[in-house]
Amino acid sequence: MEVAPIGWIETAFVEKFGIPRQSMVVPQVKGMVQFYPPYNQIEYFKGIESFDYLWLVWYFSAQKGRANKATVRPPRLGGNERVGVFASRSPYRPNPIGLSSVKLEKVHIDGAGKVSLEVSGVDLMDKTPILDIKPYVKTDIHEEARAGFTDEVAWRPLTVDMPEAVTAGLPEYLLTQLQAVLAQDPRPRTQDNPDKIYGMRFDAYDVHFTVKSGILRVVKITEQAES
Amino acid sequence: MEVAPIGWIETAFVEKFGIPRQSMVVPQVKGMVQFYPPYNQIEYFKGIESFDYLWLVWYFSAQKGRANKATVRPPRLGGNERVGVFASRSPYRPNPIGLSSVKLEKVHIDGAGKVSLEVSGVDLMDKTPILDIKPYVKTDIHEEARAGFTDEVAWRPLTVDMPEAVTAGLPEYLLTQLQAVLAQDPRPRTQDNPDKIYGMRFDAYDVHFTVKSGILRVVKITEQAES
Repeated sequence: MEVAPIGWIETAFVEKFGIPRQSMVVPQVKGMVQFYPPYNQIEYFKGIESFDYLWLVWYFSAQKGRANKATVRPPRLGGNERVGVFASRSPYRPNPIGLSSVKLEKVHIDGAGKVSLEVSGVDLMDKTPILDIKPYVKTDIHEEARAGFTDEVAWRPLTVDMPEAVTAGLPEYLLTQLQAVLAQDPRPRTQDNPDKIYGMRFDAYDVHFTVKSGILRVVKITEQAES
Repeated sequence: MEVAPIGWIETAFVEKFGIPRQSMVVPQVKGMVQFYPPYNQIEYFKGIESFDYLWLVWYFSAQKGRANKATVRPPRLGGNERVGVFASRSPYRPNPIGLSSVKLEKVHIDGAGKVSLEVSGVDLMDKTPILDIKPYVKTDIHEEARAGFTDEVAWRPLTVDMPEAVTAGLPEYLLTQLQAVLAQDPRPRTQDNPDKIYGMRFDAYDVHFTVKSGILRVVKITEQAES
């Protein structure tokens, strides 16, 4: 069965490192969904502004090849316990289809009637192909749902120490997003080395930081060279 | 991009007519998800029983060809008002991918360690190809979500009159499901003819009914001839 992208999303996550582990975990993180013709026409979106949330159905384009593994090790479980692929939201799955519920912030329409959607709470890498947009409806809400291992493990945000001297030159809107992303602890679950300087690409920047006793300290931010 | 079914679902809906218009609208309606090898192996499902709800990602196999329409007429709006394809959950969409949150009732394991999943609240036709199973997690819950036109229109269930003389021979578990499905009013939104006898296929049965002043009366149920 053949599926084809209707568009793509633009986010600050130019690499997998640092991407929030579910949608809405970092509500501040924005994205802009762009559409190929004819799907960029305003008719396709008539009435969409009356929904608060949307489902993005997308393609794990950063995943090469089809996964053959029956189990995965979710970061929530420290990266050393295994659960079944179908009991996880891991990108390693037979069909690399992703599902994210994001907040619809604004419908942008340019002069030619072309639409792009500003969304927040994204957990997608920059340029991820989008397969479908569906409105989030009341029957999607299951308040009482037990959620397995994701219920059991509390996620402790880190304290982020980002001195002004280091962030000089970074635009305010990116700074807010970066702070929230770092608080989620972007390190691989199996790594906890207080002496290591971690590097993360974020938008046009390289962000360097250490983590020690629950405090993430940003030590350097450099603008990437034009590629 | 190529996707391939990991399995299929078995339901009582052998035709499109009568299928609930969203998942969980009729919680009583059951389905059994079956898997192709190797995805029917128990390892793929390790930990899944600790989730109450699952996402089924599926393929609208009853939809022939790719849809080119920018707008659709949702049954909720009486079938005569148009909204954009991406502001609806219509099956007529560029990529015919469906999304249903269903309740996980039971994980069935046969002697050879092969798994099938009993689920409820289904809105899928019998034999629909399943592309993925994902657990429903807390970040999928957005209690405060406004849901556009689906908020505005109250769905009034019908009173179902199903005389015992008519239902004789129908197994109890199917009767419960049928009652709930009929209460949702399976008629096309644009039709309201009190003199018409409507026919619906349900499991191995043909169900005939009339609708008048909010009362759905089942007039005949016949077993289908073996095909």
